[in-house]
Amino acid sequence: MTHKPWDGRFAEATDQAVEAFTSSIAIDRRLYRQDIGGSIAHCRMLARAGIIAEEEARQLVDGLEQIRAEIENDRFVFNDRLEDIHMHVESRLAEIVGGVARKLHTARSRNDQVALDARLYLGTETRRIVRQLHALRQAVVDAAEANFGIIMPGYTHMQRAQPVLLSHHLMAYYEMFTRDSDRFRSALERIAVNPLGSAALAGTTFAIDRADTAAQLGMPRVAANSMDAVADRDFMLEFLSAASICMVHFSRLSEELVLWATSEFNFIELPDAFATGSSIMPQKKNPDVPELIRGKAGRVFGDLVALLTTMKGLPLTYNRDMQEDKAPLFSTVDTLQGCITIMTAMLPRVTFKKEVMRQATRSGFLNATDMADYLVGKGLPFREAHAVVGRAVAYALSQGKELDQLSLEELQTFSGAIDMTLFAALDVEQVVNRRTSEGGTASTMVEAAIKQAVAQLAGESLPEVESV
Amino acid sequence: MTHKPWDGRFAEATDQAVEAFTSSIAIDRRLYRQDIGGSIAHCRMLARAGIIAEEEARQLVDGLEQIRAEIENDRFVFNDRLEDIHMHVESRLAEIVGGVARKLHTARSRNDQVALDARLYLGTETRRIVRQLHALRQAVVDAAEANFGIIMPGYTHMQRAQPVLLSHHLMAYYEMFTRDSDRFRSALERIAVNPLGSAALAGTTFAIDRADTAAQLGMPRVAANSMDAVADRDFMLEFLSAASICMVHFSRLSEELVLWATSEFNFIELPDAFATGSSIMPQKKNPDVPELIRGKAGRVFGDLVALLTTMKGLPLTYNRDMQEDKAPLFSTVDTLQGCITIMTAMLPRVTFKKEVMRQATRSGFLNATDMADYLVGKGLPFREAHAVVGRAVAYALSQGKELDQLSLEELQTFSGAIDMTLFAALDVEQVVNRRTSEGGTASTMVEAAIKQAVAQLAGESLPEVESV
Amino acid sequence: MTHKPWDGRFAEATDQAVEAFTSSIAIDRRLYRQDIGGSIAHCRMLARAGIIAEEEARQLVDGLEQIRAEIENDRFVFNDRLEDIHMHVESRLAEIVGGVARKLHTARSRNDQVALDARLYLGTETRRIVRQLHALRQAVVDAAEANFGIIMPGYTHMQRAQPVLLSHHLMAYYEMFTRDSDRFRSALERIAVNPLGSAALAGTTFAIDRADTAAQLGMPRVAANSMDAVADRDFMLEFLSAASICMVHFSRLSEELVLWATSEFNFIELPDAFATGSSIMPQKKNPDVPELIRGKAGRVFGDLVALLTTMKGLPLTYNRDMQEDKAPLFSTVDTLQGCITIMTAMLPRVTFKKEVMRQATRSGFLNATDMADYLVGKGLPFREAHAVVGRAVAYALSQGKELDQLSLEELQTFSGAIDMTLFAALDVEQVVNRRTSEGGTASTMVEAAIKQAVAQLAGESLPEVESV
Amino acid sequence: MTHKPWDGRFAEATDQAVEAFTSSIAIDRRLYRQDIGGSIAHCRMLARAGIIAEEEARQLVDGLEQIRAEIENDRFVFNDRLEDIHMHVESRLAEIVGGVARKLHTARSRNDQVALDARLYLGTETRRIVRQLHALRQAVVDAAEANFGIIMPGYTHMQRAQPVLLSHHLMAYYEMFTRDSDRFRSALERIAVNPLGSAALAGTTFAIDRADTAAQLGMPRVAANSMDAVADRDFMLEFLSAASICMVHFSRLSEELVLWATSEFNFIELPDAFATGSSIMPQKKNPDVPELIRGKAGRVFGDLVALLTTMKGLPLTYNRDMQEDKAPLFSTVDTLQGCITIMTAMLPRVTFKKEVMRQATRSGFLNATDMADYLVGKGLPFREAHAVVGRAVAYALSQGKELDQLSLEELQTFSGAIDMTLFAALDVEQVVNRRTSEGGTASTMVEAAIKQAVAQLAGESLPEVESV
Repeated sequence: MTHKPWDGRFAEATDQAVEAFTSSIAIDRRLYRQDIGGSIAHCRMLARAGIIAEEEARQLVDGLEQIRAEIENDRFVFNDRLEDIHMHVESRLAEIVGGVARKLHTARSRNDQVALDARLYLGTETRRIVRQLHALRQAVVDAAEANFGIIMPGYTHMQRAQPVLLSHHLMAYYEMFTRDSDRFRSALERIAVNPLGSAALAGTTFAIDRADTAAQLGMPRVAANSMDAVADRDFMLEFLSAASICMVHFSRLSEELVLWATSEFNFIELPDAFATGSSIMPQKKNPDVPELIRGKAGRVFGDLVALLTTMKGLPLTYNRDMQEDKAPLFSTVDTLQGCITIMTAMLPRVTFKKEVMRQATRSGFLNATDMADYLVGKGLPFREAHAVVGRAVAYALSQGKELDQLSLEELQTFSGAIDMTLFAALDVEQVVNRRTSEGGTASTMVEAAIKQAVAQLAGESLPEVESV
Repeated sequence: MTHKPWDGRFAEATDQAVEAFTSSIAIDRRLYRQDIGGSIAHCRMLARAGIIAEEEARQLVDGLEQIRAEIENDRFVFNDRLEDIHMHVESRLAEIVGGVARKLHTARSRNDQVALDARLYLGTETRRIVRQLHALRQAVVDAAEANFGIIMPGYTHMQRAQPVLLSHHLMAYYEMFTRDSDRFRSALERIAVNPLGSAALAGTTFAIDRADTAAQLGMPRVAANSMDAVADRDFMLEFLSAASICMVHFSRLSEELVLWATSEFNFIELPDAFATGSSIMPQKKNPDVPELIRGKAGRVFGDLVALLTTMKGLPLTYNRDMQEDKAPLFSTVDTLQGCITIMTAMLPRVTFKKEVMRQATRSGFLNATDMADYLVGKGLPFREAHAVVGRAVAYALSQGKELDQLSLEELQTFSGAIDMTLFAALDVEQVVNRRTSEGGTASTMVEAAIKQAVAQLAGESLPEVESV
Repeated sequence: MTHKPWDGRFAEATDQAVEAFTSSIAIDRRLYRQDIGGSIAHCRMLARAGIIAEEEARQLVDGLEQIRAEIENDRFVFNDRLEDIHMHVESRLAEIVGGVARKLHTARSRNDQVALDARLYLGTETRRIVRQLHALRQAVVDAAEANFGIIMPGYTHMQRAQPVLLSHHLMAYYEMFTRDSDRFRSALERIAVNPLGSAALAGTTFAIDRADTAAQLGMPRVAANSMDAVADRDFMLEFLSAASICMVHFSRLSEELVLWATSEFNFIELPDAFATGSSIMPQKKNPDVPELIRGKAGRVFGDLVALLTTMKGLPLTYNRDMQEDKAPLFSTVDTLQGCITIMTAMLPRVTFKKEVMRQATRSGFLNATDMADYLVGKGLPFREAHAVVGRAVAYALSQGKELDQLSLEELQTFSGAIDMTLFAALDVEQVVNRRTSEGGTASTMVEAAIKQAVAQLAGESLPEVESV
Repeated sequence: MTHKPWDGRFAEATDQAVEAFTSSIAIDRRLYRQDIGGSIAHCRMLARAGIIAEEEARQLVDGLEQIRAEIENDRFVFNDRLEDIHMHVESRLAEIVGGVARKLHTARSRNDQVALDARLYLGTETRRIVRQLHALRQAVVDAAEANFGIIMPGYTHMQRAQPVLLSHHLMAYYEMFTRDSDRFRSALERIAVNPLGSAALAGTTFAIDRADTAAQLGMPRVAANSMDAVADRDFMLEFLSAASICMVHFSRLSEELVLWATSEFNFIELPDAFATGSSIMPQKKNPDVPELIRGKAGRVFGDLVALLTTMKGLPLTYNRDMQEDKAPLFSTVDTLQGCITIMTAMLPRVTFKKEVMRQATRSGFLNATDMADYLVGKGLPFREAHAVVGRAVAYALSQGKELDQLSLEELQTFSGAIDMTLFAALDVEQVVNRRTSEGGTASTMVEAAIKQAVAQLAGESLPEVESV
């Protein structure tokens, strides 16, 4: 029988069904690196603070490093009776170093230990995401550069609205993913905070040095209140929120890729390597990757809801409910990283069909706003110009024509202010390039936006991923 | 290299990262039993309908049964290049029976196959839940019977309100879990519907017999529209909704058990076998099981949100987004079944502390309503009686006494209608037993409620779990 | 100053900010009809049970009916100091009938009263929804009949898959809305349950007759446990779940309408009366109605999450948190009813463009599956036939042709089994009509499905909406 | 009949049911101040850029200011036929200033206008929240100071764990609310960004100056991509996320207040002014305010889910679905501000019962960890010390005693290392004051934490709320 750390007070062994129900090892074993790294930092600090002997610390650290190697080389035996990763490491440590293992838990509790492990893990993964997003943003900018000059319809309400540069459309996603990156960086400030030394909830009677462990573990700050430190999961919630917003962006981009890959839009061709076929319909080529990404938004929103719900209404400090924090966290980390990676790989391989897109701007009256602007230039108030063009559009629709296919005579029946110069104003390329307002779609503006993005990407310092 | 079923049309092999990203085998392998059972039923129907030969069907069925045995005996090799359970089975089948394997997919698509597998699986698990809930409801009734006669405070706003029988309190959960059972049974009507034969989306040109497969698979109904059949995941959403409501109940019961196990309430003792201790605090005995159950409400709500989000706004029919249906479904099935099972095991082992509960009814003016009712009996309108008692309570509070500890003289200063008979009316046992309205807490009523529940439980026919 | 019903015990008046914060009258005033109707039923029962005099009951009922008339004629003054609809009615009743008003609250508490009001309200609105869904289902069937014979591409992965009848596609929504209707009817069984007589939580000492009030209020059942009756909000959660699933359907249908209204699909024309334009782009005609419906799925899912969260972890019985139940409930009732009504009005006015849809079936290899089935008919195993067709598709793609535009010679290079009869098999109309499996898209099958739906709609008995 | 801005192109008036369904005026009228303020800034910029004449700008600004005054003095008529606040203002402006009103919409669309209004509104309300949180944090610190010295049990798993200072417990909430404040300040960076000038989606052909309007409206940044600017609702999602996390904190604090106000804990007395009674139970005093706050967490989580869902999968740029953004946004702003305000008012009026709390630390073996630490000090490894104390606790439980009530002889049976000095180590006050690790509960540490918080609060610069 496995001994529990609390055997002393209990008259009866834990029920096996209870062990299975409460065990978290299947999930939290992936924190082994953080758990061991945190313990090593703790040992070294304990020795420096004179709480354990140097020699004891050395033994403990050696033992912990051995365990890390065992796990990484698949030579470590996991056992359901030991409920979590902390107990596994501690139990194995006792086998390796003997009695001194029992000193590792001095001035520490599982409550601050599990908070530390989660913070170390999430810090690493958030930094990884910042780097992955950097690569994705670069891929977006690359696509905007590579496809510069393609004109396509811009849409509102999924209706053709005004012609835009494809690069302008793509750069909208650059903005979104840049905000995501900012949010993850901002979250990092509240993730990389050292809870160790809060012990069970009230701090410890040992003269520990929390700044020492923080420094060893690459954490700029120390949690200011021991009760908060063991009760807090804000850092996860903030991460899950940032991930959910990021997945909104992925779901939008994916929706567009799926749309554009339809026979009806036909704006893009996905590489065969990024599509799958059908087991029954021999002609099918399906955009599975963007579909799956779009669907995975659900999973991430669900993970956020899961943890918000779990934390709702819990009194201080640690409650076992909080063990349910890791499943949604890991699920979202994996999902988000997977989506970023695959999108970054896919984007450069998407073929944007220049001619089809350009052709699509030729119908749908995408220049109607410019005809109104033309009339404003001729002195009409905007609302009146809008009404004139509305009537012209209705007439053109009835004739099965576009505005620029009407004759000057036909056009002049709607307003005497119209002359031959209107036709130049209706030219799609001109329509695009006239939108020179800051942030607009004119080639000059989009070129400038791309340059700025290139500079921004080059100028960003990327965080190191690993800290333990 | 592994061949895809759609190799013909594609010029390029699937990217390995794409294979990994789109693979679902890690999740859907648990559907092997349903997948094979569904295929067997399909084969037999094909033969009976004359679409394949009897001998071919026999070979296919034998092969499928061999695969099932291989999986169940851990002799089956899973391979990430084969993206899902369907491809695994089909690929292995070809190895076993050769060319005839290629006939299995006649008149069928993965779209109707995956819908079938999920429905078979969820039917089985829902029936299992109905049975598990039956056992839990029995455990609740048993606890109500075993602890009959214990009086405790009933609460509103977590404030002591009126005395009730513990059994009455417990039987409230009987009602909740019975409604849960009803909801799952109702959901079953929409789960156990046969989609097979819808093929990819439009039905098939083969003269299949969908009623035949339905009958083989224990499904009372056949899906009426092929496009709906492959696009629909309502049956999962309805299940997840019923599970979420059920988890609300578990979270409430768990909250009460956690509350009652506090030093402050001290109403119950959990068995040592269902509690855990602390790695740092030697005295701790923590109610981990109800805490975890309470926390798991989050996971289930999250799963529901995940699938609702994934399905939102998908055009007909099948979209790959829907592959994301199984992770939340399996997570909720496992979570809910785990909670039901452990609660059923724990409940009989909870010790309810009769004396502590009874003592708690002696303070907090739990008989104040009865003093008002007494005054109504003496002719006062209820609102006036309420005000009289309110003043008496305020006075008693100032004296540090309960109502029944005031003297007759003191009491009569609040109303001349009061006489010695009031004291009997204030007796806690009488207060309980006077609530004889239907569904009330009087012993007679609770006894009747228990009897009715016993009869209901005995009278219910429980569904068989397995159908394939 | 307004008196509270609990003035007796309190030394200090309620803080005004607290009154504002806790007041629910702005929200629950819409329950006035249920509140008054419930009180009238309660009065009549009290008199029949001999708890109050007949004459008192008459006065109370007259007063209550007067209040109802005042509210319905906008002659009733609402006042924030009276926190909820119950207090408003009771306070006004005292003005009208004097002291006897104070007897209305005999054998009743706000806890069972508010549960009753909510159940009466939700019963009415759920029955209304069942009727509205009946009208919508009729509109779907009408559209399927009116547009019978239109062939369009059926989609999987938003890629053209196989040709289907538009009517078949529409009838998929008939199935969804029928399941919705079934779910709401099923929920009604757990909504229309009488909680009255549970009093605060423990039942009452008065000899009331709960079956009497249930019968007066059109409720088939009486809540079996008084504590459950005042603590339970399952009936709302079940309603919100059914509404969420229904909104999934609306979001899917709306997505399709928005898609089909794009220039790219161009499958439908929305009536001008159901679209709006742009303040800046004169040519725009936007599908605002389906866009808004699609967006409103969010609101309803949010309402479900809101109430699940609020109820999570609440100990028995009533807690003030539960006051937060009505805002999400009313929001979802309004949203869902609005969506059903506007969709029912819009559907008959949508123009489906027969020629455009038919044209769309001519490209995209929608008959590829049938070529495979043809080869199976010639003796090839399905998987082999699939591969043959895949190669033929790849070749046709390279030639910029469809399968039926290849010559017999070209086709025969892929399989010697091909002869002239293939071309008939590839004809789109034949492709559709060959799918005669149950629930398939062949005209005969769709016609039968429509007939069955017409019969089902005619045969359903619709519930009366109002019960008080 | 009311004219729409797009009448020109449409043959048919908008259906009245459609007008009602699509109208947002009931909700967005509260944006009037932002809408008018934004329009004034736009006019002034147009004049400065020479796009309209100075005199025209003056007339427009005067007219807009008159409308603002009319609305603020309740002299403005709202009309359902004008679908939103923008149309109301523009329509009234035409009445006031005549034809020049039609120039207001030059170089602008409702798409950038509505984004601007929402950003101005949310900027204001977020800054208000930062100020309100400042006041709440001050109230927490004040309560920690005012109640300094009170010792209470600290809890894990809702079980008494170790004694802590009440002030330490309260200061945990200071940390949480400070993080909330940080998150709202961080969100502000992405809220206060000027979208104006993006026009419908592609920018405008007029030579506008977006930095000018940004400066007028107090926005430090200009949106960099016009398509992103009109499609983006991240700033709302980020706000709703921060609000949800903040509501987790409120729900936890409220749960504790509700718990502490129970008869069983009896740690606090709420002021009568912040509690309510019962309509049936005369003795009740209910903690309605914290209950409601706890319940309102649901509403805010629901609002977040609502907007995440609505935004999921929307292609660029504006879609009408996004009109559904304001209802959840306003709901959360109101809810959160209400909760902050009422908690700030209530906290100073809560009476913490020093004696009851202190008494509670005397049972439950809160000093058990210190006995283990004592043994570590005597040379035992921690795990062994833990086991010794566990056995001592089990023995003491069996004797119905606390550890410090055992005799030295009894204690020494568990370890020979124990002597008389143990009793001092077990003294509760010493137990508290020995936890001097950084962030620990020792008086010295808590005093320092309070001082630091006071300094932090004094040093923070608070943002001005209004910007238009």
